[in-house]
Amino acid sequence: MERQHEPVRSAEELGSPLFVSCEESDSPQQEECTMLKKSDNYLPVPGEEKNVDVDFKTMDRDNESIPMKNLYADNGSALHPELPYFSDGRRRVDYVLAYHIEKPSSLRRQSSRFSNSNFIRRLRRSLSMRSSRAPLQPKEDPEIAAQEQRTDYHEDDKRFRREEFEENLLEMGLELEKDEGSKIPGIGFLKIHAPWNVLCREAEFMKLKMPTKKVYDVKQGSNLVEKIRLFIHKVTAPLHPKVDAYKPQTVKSLSHPFSREKQHLFDLSDRDKFFDSKNRSSIVYEILKRTRCTRAKYSMGITSLLANGVYSSAYPLHDGDVEGENAEPNDRKLLCEEWASYSVFYKYQPIGLIRKYFGEKIGLYFAWLGVYTQMLIPAAIVGVIVFLYGCATVDDNIPSMEICDPRNNITVCPLCDHACSYWKLVEACGTARASHLFDNPATVFFSIFMALWAVLFMEHWKRRQMRLNYLWDLTGFGEEEEDHNRAEYEFRVMQKTMKQEQSIPKEEKVKLTCTDRLPAYLTTLAMMGFMIAVTFVIVFGVILYRISIKAALHISTYPAARSNIRATVKTTAAIINLIIIIILDEVYAALARWLTTLEVPKTDKSFEERLIFKTFILKFVNAFTPIVYLAFFRGRLVGRPGNYLYVMGSYRMEECAHAGCLMELCIQLCITMLGKQLIQNNLFEIGIPKVKKLLRKRKSDIDSKQEEEMNKTMHRHEKDHFLGPFVGLSPEYMEMIIQFGMVTLFVASFPLAPLFALLNNIIEIRLDAKKFVTELRRPIAAKAKDIGIWYNLLRGLSKVAVIVNAFVISFTSDFIPRLVYQYTYSPDGTMHGFVNHTLSYFNVSDFQPGTDPLQPMHLGYKVEICRYKDYREPPWSSTPYELSKEFWVILAARLAFVIVFQNVVMLMSDFVDWLIPDIPKDISLQIHKEKILMVELFMKEEQGKRFAVRDNPSQDNYTTPSPANQSPPQPRSRPVSHANCY
Amino acid sequence: MERQHEPVRSAEELGSPLFVSCEESDSPQQEECTMLKKSDNYLPVPGEEKNVDVDFKTMDRDNESIPMKNLYADNGSALHPELPYFSDGRRRVDYVLAYHIEKPSSLRRQSSRFSNSNFIRRLRRSLSMRSSRAPLQPKEDPEIAAQEQRTDYHEDDKRFRREEFEENLLEMGLELEKDEGSKIPGIGFLKIHAPWNVLCREAEFMKLKMPTKKVYDVKQGSNLVEKIRLFIHKVTAPLHPKVDAYKPQTVKSLSHPFSREKQHLFDLSDRDKFFDSKNRSSIVYEILKRTRCTRAKYSMGITSLLANGVYSSAYPLHDGDVEGENAEPNDRKLLCEEWASYSVFYKYQPIGLIRKYFGEKIGLYFAWLGVYTQMLIPAAIVGVIVFLYGCATVDDNIPSMEICDPRNNITVCPLCDHACSYWKLVEACGTARASHLFDNPATVFFSIFMALWAVLFMEHWKRRQMRLNYLWDLTGFGEEEEDHNRAEYEFRVMQKTMKQEQSIPKEEKVKLTCTDRLPAYLTTLAMMGFMIAVTFVIVFGVILYRISIKAALHISTYPAARSNIRATVKTTAAIINLIIIIILDEVYAALARWLTTLEVPKTDKSFEERLIFKTFILKFVNAFTPIVYLAFFRGRLVGRPGNYLYVMGSYRMEECAHAGCLMELCIQLCITMLGKQLIQNNLFEIGIPKVKKLLRKRKSDIDSKQEEEMNKTMHRHEKDHFLGPFVGLSPEYMEMIIQFGMVTLFVASFPLAPLFALLNNIIEIRLDAKKFVTELRRPIAAKAKDIGIWYNLLRGLSKVAVIVNAFVISFTSDFIPRLVYQYTYSPDGTMHGFVNHTLSYFNVSDFQPGTDPLQPMHLGYKVEICRYKDYREPPWSSTPYELSKEFWVILAARLAFVIVFQNVVMLMSDFVDWLIPDIPKDISLQIHKEKILMVELFMKEEQGKRFAVRDNPSQDNYTTPSPANQSPPQPRSRPVSHANCY
Repeated sequence: MERQHEPVRSAEELGSPLFVSCEESDSPQQEECTMLKKSDNYLPVPGEEKNVDVDFKTMDRDNESIPMKNLYADNGSALHPELPYFSDGRRRVDYVLAYHIEKPSSLRRQSSRFSNSNFIRRLRRSLSMRSSRAPLQPKEDPEIAAQEQRTDYHEDDKRFRREEFEENLLEMGLELEKDEGSKIPGIGFLKIHAPWNVLCREAEFMKLKMPTKKVYDVKQGSNLVEKIRLFIHKVTAPLHPKVDAYKPQTVKSLSHPFSREKQHLFDLSDRDKFFDSKNRSSIVYEILKRTRCTRAKYSMGITSLLANGVYSSAYPLHDGDVEGENAEPNDRKLLCEEWASYSVFYKYQPIGLIRKYFGEKIGLYFAWLGVYTQMLIPAAIVGVIVFLYGCATVDDNIPSMEICDPRNNITVCPLCDHACSYWKLVEACGTARASHLFDNPATVFFSIFMALWAVLFMEHWKRRQMRLNYLWDLTGFGEEEEDHNRAEYEFRVMQKTMKQEQSIPKEEKVKLTCTDRLPAYLTTLAMMGFMIAVTFVIVFGVILYRISIKAALHISTYPAARSNIRATVKTTAAIINLIIIIILDEVYAALARWLTTLEVPKTDKSFEERLIFKTFILKFVNAFTPIVYLAFFRGRLVGRPGNYLYVMGSYRMEECAHAGCLMELCIQLCITMLGKQLIQNNLFEIGIPKVKKLLRKRKSDIDSKQEEEMNKTMHRHEKDHFLGPFVGLSPEYMEMIIQFGMVTLFVASFPLAPLFALLNNIIEIRLDAKKFVTELRRPIAAKAKDIGIWYNLLRGLSKVAVIVNAFVISFTSDFIPRLVYQYTYSPDGTMHGFVNHTLSYFNVSDFQPGTDPLQPMHLGYKVEICRYKDYREPPWSSTPYELSKEFWVILAARLAFVIVFQNVVMLMSDFVDWLIPDIPKDISLQIHKEKILMVELFMKEEQGKRFAVRDNPSQDNYTTPSPANQSPPQPRSRPVSHANCY
Repeated sequence: MERQHEPVRSAEELGSPLFVSCEESDSPQQEECTMLKKSDNYLPVPGEEKNVDVDFKTMDRDNESIPMKNLYADNGSALHPELPYFSDGRRRVDYVLAYHIEKPSSLRRQSSRFSNSNFIRRLRRSLSMRSSRAPLQPKEDPEIAAQEQRTDYHEDDKRFRREEFEENLLEMGLELEKDEGSKIPGIGFLKIHAPWNVLCREAEFMKLKMPTKKVYDVKQGSNLVEKIRLFIHKVTAPLHPKVDAYKPQTVKSLSHPFSREKQHLFDLSDRDKFFDSKNRSSIVYEILKRTRCTRAKYSMGITSLLANGVYSSAYPLHDGDVEGENAEPNDRKLLCEEWASYSVFYKYQPIGLIRKYFGEKIGLYFAWLGVYTQMLIPAAIVGVIVFLYGCATVDDNIPSMEICDPRNNITVCPLCDHACSYWKLVEACGTARASHLFDNPATVFFSIFMALWAVLFMEHWKRRQMRLNYLWDLTGFGEEEEDHNRAEYEFRVMQKTMKQEQSIPKEEKVKLTCTDRLPAYLTTLAMMGFMIAVTFVIVFGVILYRISIKAALHISTYPAARSNIRATVKTTAAIINLIIIIILDEVYAALARWLTTLEVPKTDKSFEERLIFKTFILKFVNAFTPIVYLAFFRGRLVGRPGNYLYVMGSYRMEECAHAGCLMELCIQLCITMLGKQLIQNNLFEIGIPKVKKLLRKRKSDIDSKQEEEMNKTMHRHEKDHFLGPFVGLSPEYMEMIIQFGMVTLFVASFPLAPLFALLNNIIEIRLDAKKFVTELRRPIAAKAKDIGIWYNLLRGLSKVAVIVNAFVISFTSDFIPRLVYQYTYSPDGTMHGFVNHTLSYFNVSDFQPGTDPLQPMHLGYKVEICRYKDYREPPWSSTPYELSKEFWVILAARLAFVIVFQNVVMLMSDFVDWLIPDIPKDISLQIHKEKILMVELFMKEEQGKRFAVRDNPSQDNYTTPSPANQSPPQPRSRPVSHANCY
């Protein structure tokens, strides 16, 4: 990137004779291309590699006009193999296609080849393994698919296809170089370079917005605002990454879709840098997508070629090495230092640079992750305060004081049949106190806060996204439809076409209809239903485990076991749940993938959407079923003493601890969140790769040495070939969405969730960054205006969160009963007597035969009336054990609270949404300003043209050559540069 | 439009020498323009009119190159004054600015002038009156404003400004013609024509998408689908308007933003028709907006000039006359016949033609109105069925049978204090039966249906909008920000600038801050609060009226009055409510307007948004307060016998009839809807204008004759000047939104609402159409992709509708109590005994002193226990008159129903929303196809260029002239046409 040091001469300076450029000299190249095609003299045999190179080189010489030669004057970079250039050291490699080659039989030394390729395969797999922790991959690893299907096609067939494809690429104006004698045996590389005229043409087609020469001052608001901004910037200076793009900018250059006719607008003085490596590779990819092999039975695009193993992989190149002595500064290295490192965890991310290197889509992901993490900070702080408030007020809490007061001599009915006996309410003192930590009025406030927080987060993100759109010149960019058919789809269509060739007239285009997909849809439906059922069954299994273990422990007479009953059962159950969740997560991801493949979606976009949909449902059900059970069902389906609900014969459904189920919900949430994050992040993403690396090193010391040796001399494209392929952002997003669900859905029961999420995300950002910078091949820079479907999922979640929190507060916590008691039943307006009020009376003579306790005298006296937690009529009323009026009053209050909470929070959310404009004021002002400047620029141009014509009325620019072309007046640059690019 | 009959010769045919065009011949014109400016020889005195005309004509001759002359060969249209051309009969008038002129004193015959201008003013006002029924006007009538401010500026001052402005317009390349000796004394007209090169330039700036020569087959789906489509089209043929655009099209031409460099893509053979009148006028308007007078104290754009009376009005011209002998076919006439006529009420609207004539924004309004009306058809049908179901089942309804059964000898407590006495439940038989019509299980189904209907309507509209966007080539068009400052804003800013000139450095741009607007905001807040309070007070007043009249009637001993009590009170109260609503509607609209003006919003868009917001709130509160009172408060704040709630001293709050308030709600809704629509539509929109016309005719027979005489000889721009100005679509939308609210919000109580709305809208469409076609000046064609803020309002309403309907069903109707009774309390699972169950017992000895009935023996026996409708404990319970357990059970059931209903319907809505893709499948396919075709076209072009170069390798197109330019090979058309447009 920094190779060119000679003073740059602009197009105007150089004058037109130098810039007659490609078009005139095009025909010799064309002829040579045609000749080349016909003679087929570049068979992909490594021995002939030199020959091909020479061919390409001469072609290149002819093609490049004089100024290009000037620009490429210092030819030193050919000495650095790690720099991404053709072997002439001039033309940049913009894209690489790799393919398997059969070695000529003379060179086939079976043993060595196998050991070699084995090593390679192992190396590749271990490297790619690090990145495939989350098995949700929107695109399949093309190499695996290739290996599977390799037997389908003969090597010759593949070679012919490659040849046709390469011819077509040449036809499109790309320049190619083959490298079949690389350091990696069995792999050939096709290096692709896009020359200037192709870049121009494609940039015009793609309407790439490029910065023009026209710059303008960015408006900085009024003086005071500006001062505050500067002050804040100074204060937060240590938090900024040391990246140029992060400095506050006072000028911005107008952007305009690139057009060869408007070339004079752009600063083309340095053609090498005008299109950066990201743009170049996406331009080449655009051409690759459009190019097709048509000579074979059915036409194949690049995706089909990759899927069929004609090419094994396709990727653009990284900018340079991350570490090592050849420490030429490059964007990748900068990213590695200022972003992909744990030591800078406290800093902002260099989003501009990320976008510059990886493109808008990945830039948006990290920007989103950053905004999310940033927004978690206030949530975590408030969460901690709420938790601390709970801790501080635990001693002032009248209900738990009453429970812990031994003077309240309340006898409670046994918790299980037969084995258990009556117990004193004082025994529940500990859990009652602990419950208060999470079940206090502050949690109500906190869940309202978090509902608004979620809305604010969405709004903040929308504005940030808009700002980034403006900064990245995406305003006015319409979302491109992914129009590329998937290879599997094309294959199926081909099959169908063959089958129907007789019956259906030819002009009708064959496509897959619903009928074709019906079996797949049915399978999907059945499997999804089955999997959800499996989740339910497993959760139920864990419940049974808990019940049976509890009963068993109760029966056992060993006192130590008995005392630890609750703790043991809770912990083991939660851990079992956690392990099952993690295992099923992986299973479900694979399953969703398989089901989606069955459906044969048409495009990658559709594939991704269907996959995300399935994965989301399965993972969500998986993660939240145990939690939902705890929150809403546990303790509710118990029945009442004398009429308990039994499952599986004789197991009584489990009850909650006296102070409600909130405590257990909280423990479950805590273990799930912490455990999942710890295991997934640390074990899967950090631990396993490290262990594998260690093992590999120990096993083969020689290999490792060989590796290092190779590393030094390897070309860039060879090094990148060892990296894992980029598999899309879906797994990363999915992980975050599930986390977002944890943070918002049950936040009423676990105010520390945001804190845990925050801690996790700080690591997550750098972990992902490391992966993208060092462990994956460079992804194609994809344009994106927004985060797409994920935004909708977030919105959906935050809506569901409101209603879930409403139910948690009103039904799981004791908030409403306490409120109702205090304002309706309490004799003195305080909470005194609340515990007594919540307990109903039961006459022990009403126990069903066989369910009364074995040891009725356990407490030392004969129990006649025991108490249980419910609102029912006492045994002496006219309707004993019926639900009492209090029950209905409290139920009405609970339901009313749900309605009020849901609608008030929704109204507030909508209000906040409406109040905050989606486009930040300053951005909309600047967009407007840019538009005006653009019109002004064009109007000036028009007038310049008019005056120019008026000045030389006799001169006709378009039909006669004139000396004016050599030294045009200022506004006349247009026709000159016009001839530049053909 | 249809003037040109000679065979059209395309640009290619004519060859390049003919198309050297404007640029070369530009300079003479320029010089003449400059000369013109300097000599100032076109003083706006009518006597010199001819002179000016000649000037312009010669200019025109010079300007137009040879082919233009050919195109305009037949000069016959100069004879038709009604056609919109300059006096040379060639150049089309694209826009007209009108202004007031002082007559030279020699001509000033005071009396005649006054009578004349009086007539004119009367005529103008009566014509504009017809269109100003709804006082919500987004833009003020500039002429009224002009008259107000006229005293501010001297005539001379205005003239100088006009001159500067006109010079600037000439500078921009527009061509002008003055007409100060028109048929309308005191008014001068400036006719504006945009020549071809200006049109091209501006079309390029505005990125106008124009159809290219490239056409393609519209894909028609598979054979079967296509056949069905054709069949449907054939069946519905009588419903289609007889308009060309409505025929099914098999080909569509690709559109591309117009660009002079890509001229060869477009079919420019008929320059006159390439830009239609709509495009031409919006291009001129674009230039007008950009042009500013800067010489005066502060720079003024066209809006300021209009507001200050420098110009009195600005409008584009209609295409031709609607009726009359000079029956040249034109779009306006076609619209009038096939759209703006009651006789075609059953037909589809010719949306394409509407858009072609009025632009996208108005096209979208009518398309929306059409979709809404169409969607009302199924809703109306289902509504009628639900109503009929109610009618059919009224005899099987057990509760009303029980009430009507005289054997159930139930004595009910008196309905008012003292005057009223005990009564038999049988007396409520009539209302109970009537109530069943609207209070039956079918209404629950209907309100779920209508909630989904609303969602489906929104979805259907989104898809239709998308389809129209595609058909109208709006895909990819980004919504333009309205960037034009309002005149009032600029005036305020100027004032502020003057005040602060000393204190603030000059480079800082002055703008209105919140501080400047604070008083206005506070006024707004206070006034809005006050107005809402006024609405509440009025509703309360009507309640008091009802209570007092009822009491008075009860006291009166006249038996006839007594028997009609209920009917009289209900009807008069509802009519009073209706009248108040209609009056307040007008008051509020004016008020909202005034408040918004106080706030001095910056742009028209912001003005409109603020105005809509205020008007919506006020009108909504106004329309729905009485209804909300009836639905949710009436009969709830009554108290109980012995402890009634009293307001204003001694008035007891009114109770509902025995069978619930639903009946009264229904009557109120019915009267409001019918009355409002009848009065607003028929009286305000049809009746009053007709009466006025009649009165005018009778008063001045001569004037009317004179009018007819003038009508014949008047020019197009003079005729249009008599029409009312276009005041925006907001009033039309607002009316429909309020109606939508009526249809969805309380649909549970009034299933016939959709039917009424449907009938109203069928008239409304044609009424609005008539207004736009015949009574208003032609509006500027505004581009719009969607209906903007109205969509959000609709969405908001349909969300609110869900919760309101949930409450109406569960609280206003008896649905839930019946359900609870049937499944919980009923001894035999039927409704028998329900009536008895809903009535509580009251011991008459517990009446508060002075409230017991005057005539306790009215029924002929001594009453000891009377019954009242509530769930309370009987007098003999331990807690007499407390709310009973049943009350709480039913309350809980009601609340639960609200939660379930709201969430289920919301979920279903979201599901439907998600299920139906926003972009119809075929449209997205075609958009995709168009993209591919576009790329193919360009690639072919590129290759053509390359081959052309290869064919003549020695020839350089850009530097040497060659004979190839005269007869270029096919793909070489580009450089030729390239020279076309400068």
